[in-house]
Amino acid sequence: MSDNGAITRSSALRITVLTDGDTRPPGLDKVEAIGDVAIAHDEASLRDALPGSQILLVTDFRTAALEAAWDAADALQWIHAASAGVDALMFDALVDSDIPVTNAQGIFDRNIAEYVLGAILMFAKDSKNNIRYQQARRWVHRDTETIENKKLLVVGAGSIGRHIGQLCRAAGMQIAGVARRAKPGDDVFDAIHAQDELDALLPAADYVVVAAPLTEDTEGLFDADRFAAMAPHARFINIGRGAIVDTPALVAALDDARIAGAALDVFDTEPLPEDHPLWQFDNVLISAHMAGDFIGWRIALIDQFLDNLSRWQRQEPLFNLVSKRFGYAPSTPR
Amino acid sequence: MSDNGAITRSSALRITVLTDGDTRPPGLDKVEAIGDVAIAHDEASLRDALPGSQILLVTDFRTAALEAAWDAADALQWIHAASAGVDALMFDALVDSDIPVTNAQGIFDRNIAEYVLGAILMFAKDSKNNIRYQQARRWVHRDTETIENKKLLVVGAGSIGRHIGQLCRAAGMQIAGVARRAKPGDDVFDAIHAQDELDALLPAADYVVVAAPLTEDTEGLFDADRFAAMAPHARFINIGRGAIVDTPALVAALDDARIAGAALDVFDTEPLPEDHPLWQFDNVLISAHMAGDFIGWRIALIDQFLDNLSRWQRQEPLFNLVSKRFGYAPSTPR
Repeated sequence: MSDNGAITRSSALRITVLTDGDTRPPGLDKVEAIGDVAIAHDEASLRDALPGSQILLVTDFRTAALEAAWDAADALQWIHAASAGVDALMFDALVDSDIPVTNAQGIFDRNIAEYVLGAILMFAKDSKNNIRYQQARRWVHRDTETIENKKLLVVGAGSIGRHIGQLCRAAGMQIAGVARRAKPGDDVFDAIHAQDELDALLPAADYVVVAAPLTEDTEGLFDADRFAAMAPHARFINIGRGAIVDTPALVAALDDARIAGAALDVFDTEPLPEDHPLWQFDNVLISAHMAGDFIGWRIALIDQFLDNLSRWQRQEPLFNLVSKRFGYAPSTPR
Repeated sequence: MSDNGAITRSSALRITVLTDGDTRPPGLDKVEAIGDVAIAHDEASLRDALPGSQILLVTDFRTAALEAAWDAADALQWIHAASAGVDALMFDALVDSDIPVTNAQGIFDRNIAEYVLGAILMFAKDSKNNIRYQQARRWVHRDTETIENKKLLVVGAGSIGRHIGQLCRAAGMQIAGVARRAKPGDDVFDAIHAQDELDALLPAADYVVVAAPLTEDTEGLFDADRFAAMAPHARFINIGRGAIVDTPALVAALDDARIAGAALDVFDTEPLPEDHPLWQFDNVLISAHMAGDFIGWRIALIDQFLDNLSRWQRQEPLFNLVSKRFGYAPSTPR
């Protein structure tokens, strides 16, 4: 899987790992084989760890600790986010710095695409009601929908959105994309439209999936007007970030049956609070921010970091470089 | 959709429609435009309707009435089963007769394939537990499986099995098939094996789907030995006929965790009785014999019958002819 053989251990190399709890991330021994590793999980422990560290590996994609402890980063040369989204790192002091940020583009693509196709098939086949009837031991025949030639609008045509489009196209759907800028159609997308065309595209979509990064341009993008523009039979899927959606507007759209359902893996508050109205809808599928997390993903993230680390040690260009202006790593052909 | 324009009405043409209840099948007006139609739903009404009828259209795939009323079929020239499976029609008197039987091959292929891929994705993504956690308002993150390169064994490589293989291959799986006779691999199947190789193939499969017709060769095929041969992590999917499975053996295999789950759309007794043990398993997905029944399927079945009827009127060869020796219509390239 990885090219780690090229990496040499250096006692002068200090790596801070910012994680989301007291548990030790799997695969960390591979990093410890290369340099001195300090683990932090909040502002205080990060302040202790950062001084002298050249590299920061962030496995907690929700962290606010880095911005809080930023003044302790006195030797940082590179930050790697072991996540697809880097929104939590795009605070002014880091954006304005010269420190490069890389991310985990590519790792989650396939599994997220499978999650999206699975959700679409669950809507089409009325699978949640099958389970509810099974729980009630009731035999209830219904006619169900096909997904063939149904229209999927992928909002966010980057690495994840492209994989979603590819898989759903292979399964017989028609795919259109929305990106920051319009691009010609290709083997996945019939067309890629600019974000300002979104309102004109929404009425024709049978399924709308958000696969965009959370940026200034996408925050709150799906508001009451957007849900009103969708067809009443359409379903909304979010595997991007919760804050791209105006959640009260989504709840209202579901309450009023202005859309036919939603599959949600991300939320503006995570974990989703127990008293949140989204839990209750029969036509909503909820999962715990896990769409991309295939068995083995933590090790895969460490291996990807080590691949980039070997480039860094050889002073070669890093891959998956985040554009700090736009807040995501531009997708590159593989 | 159909070539019905070529059909001419004949008052001499008498068509009996054997249906499963008192409700009038949708689209029947199209048949009534062509000939005199009598509707039957049990042995008694069939005995009244059959004398003088040249054509019998059977929409009740479970019927036992035809065998019971067979002696009343004094003018029959053609029987069309508006179903994929014709097992209920393969009684000796009909098999031994010269009356051709056609079926609904092709109509249900796409929707059944979508059902199977949907079920596979639900297993991989642990979707049933997502729904159960949602019902309990619990946020429980898990790592889930990918379906990429997973091995699907399709038992029954006819029209339905081929569509299942095609869709699941497009979604990234590896497909092997089992048929009455071995055939070379093609664009869907890596290989098609003979049924007597089944035991050797079962251990390597991640998913096993039954898409075979119910015949003497397949009745009770999946018994305790077959489930014992499957891998403990494998899932079993049945969209064929319930009687292909030894149901107590399946229940025992699930009870003992000898297989990891099952998706069942067909059962040896339908509707599945309320007190049946299959309802209760958390790793079983149950649906009410509806995998093929897309919105509009009843009209599509009538249109397909009318296409064949126009051939019959022109004395051209019928399509979807059932081999009464083998009990199914050999799949033909389209």
